[in-house]
Amino acid sequence: MEQNKQIIFKGYIDGTPKETDMELKLGEIEVKAPKGSKAVLVKNLYLSCDPYMRGRMRENYESYIHPFVPGSVIEGFGVCKVVESDDPFYKIGDLVVGLTGWEEYSFVRKNEQLRKIEHGHDDVPLSYHVGLLGMAGFTAYAGFYEVCAPKRGDCVFVSAASGAVGQLVGQLARLHGCYVVGAAGSSQKVSLLKEKLGFHEAFNYKEESNLDAALKRCFPQGIDIYFDNVGGAMLDAALLNMKVHGRIAVCGMVSQQSISNRDGIHNLFTLISKRIKMQGFLQSDYLHLFPQFLEHVLREYKQGNIVYIEDLNEGLESAPAALVGLFSGKNVGKQVVCIAQD
Amino acid sequence: MEQNKQIIFKGYIDGTPKETDMELKLGEIEVKAPKGSKAVLVKNLYLSCDPYMRGRMRENYESYIHPFVPGSVIEGFGVCKVVESDDPFYKIGDLVVGLTGWEEYSFVRKNEQLRKIEHGHDDVPLSYHVGLLGMAGFTAYAGFYEVCAPKRGDCVFVSAASGAVGQLVGQLARLHGCYVVGAAGSSQKVSLLKEKLGFHEAFNYKEESNLDAALKRCFPQGIDIYFDNVGGAMLDAALLNMKVHGRIAVCGMVSQQSISNRDGIHNLFTLISKRIKMQGFLQSDYLHLFPQFLEHVLREYKQGNIVYIEDLNEGLESAPAALVGLFSGKNVGKQVVCIAQD
Repeated sequence: MEQNKQIIFKGYIDGTPKETDMELKLGEIEVKAPKGSKAVLVKNLYLSCDPYMRGRMRENYESYIHPFVPGSVIEGFGVCKVVESDDPFYKIGDLVVGLTGWEEYSFVRKNEQLRKIEHGHDDVPLSYHVGLLGMAGFTAYAGFYEVCAPKRGDCVFVSAASGAVGQLVGQLARLHGCYVVGAAGSSQKVSLLKEKLGFHEAFNYKEESNLDAALKRCFPQGIDIYFDNVGGAMLDAALLNMKVHGRIAVCGMVSQQSISNRDGIHNLFTLISKRIKMQGFLQSDYLHLFPQFLEHVLREYKQGNIVYIEDLNEGLESAPAALVGLFSGKNVGKQVVCIAQD
Repeated sequence: MEQNKQIIFKGYIDGTPKETDMELKLGEIEVKAPKGSKAVLVKNLYLSCDPYMRGRMRENYESYIHPFVPGSVIEGFGVCKVVESDDPFYKIGDLVVGLTGWEEYSFVRKNEQLRKIEHGHDDVPLSYHVGLLGMAGFTAYAGFYEVCAPKRGDCVFVSAASGAVGQLVGQLARLHGCYVVGAAGSSQKVSLLKEKLGFHEAFNYKEESNLDAALKRCFPQGIDIYFDNVGGAMLDAALLNMKVHGRIAVCGMVSQQSISNRDGIHNLFTLISKRIKMQGFLQSDYLHLFPQFLEHVLREYKQGNIVYIEDLNEGLESAPAALVGLFSGKNVGKQVVCIAQD
């Protein structure tokens, strides 16, 4: 038996997640995959912090993914290394990405949830496999190309634009020949959007007394595509500024994740007058496109057309604070926790 | 000069329209189309009352159609007879349908807004050309087939189901092999839905203390298609009951037309978890389909597969009350005002 530090989910919550909703526990693990078990034992290297995880902290949350189990280890996406395997497909030393536990070592029994990281991606930071090349990046890709139906010259608005998904949406849109404006929650993020991520314009929504006016300033002709990562008041303002036949991809409602009594949306009448298509989506419906996504994004990345900003915390102990920080916009870029380098 | 009774729009309003927002006036009209004017003089026979007209009573309404002009005659769809014409395309005695005035006689100068009623439709009540075969019917047809992407076996929910649009949506859905449930605002309307219009189930939303529970009762497996004519609380409840990959056609928000401070919609988060497509539309974007709509609906009507319920008021004087009644659900079926039989 080996020691195994774990982050335990204490119980269902109401409101914004707090660090005290989770606790560090010292567990034990048998570093052996029993014969015939087909199990794989992995060492967790990088853990992904994602807003959807808030949904799993709610009981009876009508969702596409089941809630966390109180008293059990938090589950999330991670980059891992295989250290024991009873499945011949996975060899010791293989790097994999998939659903794992917030702990040093995890037994994975549903091996189909692990994807091997191919050689040839070795010049990409390992952590990118839960970001740019992982669920976040693929969400941006599937949402932008499959839901938004973009055309060259379209005016594109992205909220939470420096976040894990938004920063790639904006770059894909720019590369597609669109005009791109991002909203973010600090002047540092606004600078990143304009100076590193190639957005044509950006604003700090916390400094705007009137979101409708901010959007009218950035989009005097209106918005063709709104990639919505936040919901709430920003969605309501965007609805007033869409062009005829505009498209809204509803990707996340991070502003609403923690609010049991959610803000109401008041401006849906524009859906009719502007003939807007508003569509919610999950990346998991588009997995057949994953190979072409990887190829597309890797090519653009290697050619220097795409960059990716990460916020990297060190140590499993820091994971609860990193997750909680998402809901106040503390992270700058994709939030990852590094548990071990290899 | 001839006398010409008219219904005048008095001025912009806030809240629900009242009869006193309009007034009857005795005007005069020259029953002659001046040479070279290309004008057509029509006698108005049937006038259509439609919820969208509320939008034209608001100043600066960001809409697809300009507001009414205070002090001028109300404009709307009507069935008319040509009584004078300087346009060789229109002969005296021709029956036409299009945008006209709420008055006995109208000069129409934009003749392209008039469509001739072809012979061969003579066995259809004339008033149907502003209902079943007019904008309302075409809205149902375009919305159902083009926006809802229906499949045989789909579970379809229609609000304002006995109204001008809803009653045809329900019948088209049934003929398409769908399971159809309608909501309406009186027990009389519920009976019509089930006994005359062929809905599989129907309920009186005013008698339901919990719309969510009512929908769960009618759709234990969830809703594939919601054809939304009302917005507001019913939309919020439907959002909680959609199936994965459900479609919502946003056709009207009659519950919200008169409310300056509209109800908020709180359940849009289900757009993501259920990957719902929600789309606003206007029939005017689909006019290329009008000929096939006419053919389809006329065929089904003549074969007895479709019926159409009208609420017919008599006399121009009754038009304001008929329009106002729409917003309290007073009408049973499509609201039409008969000014003259021919």
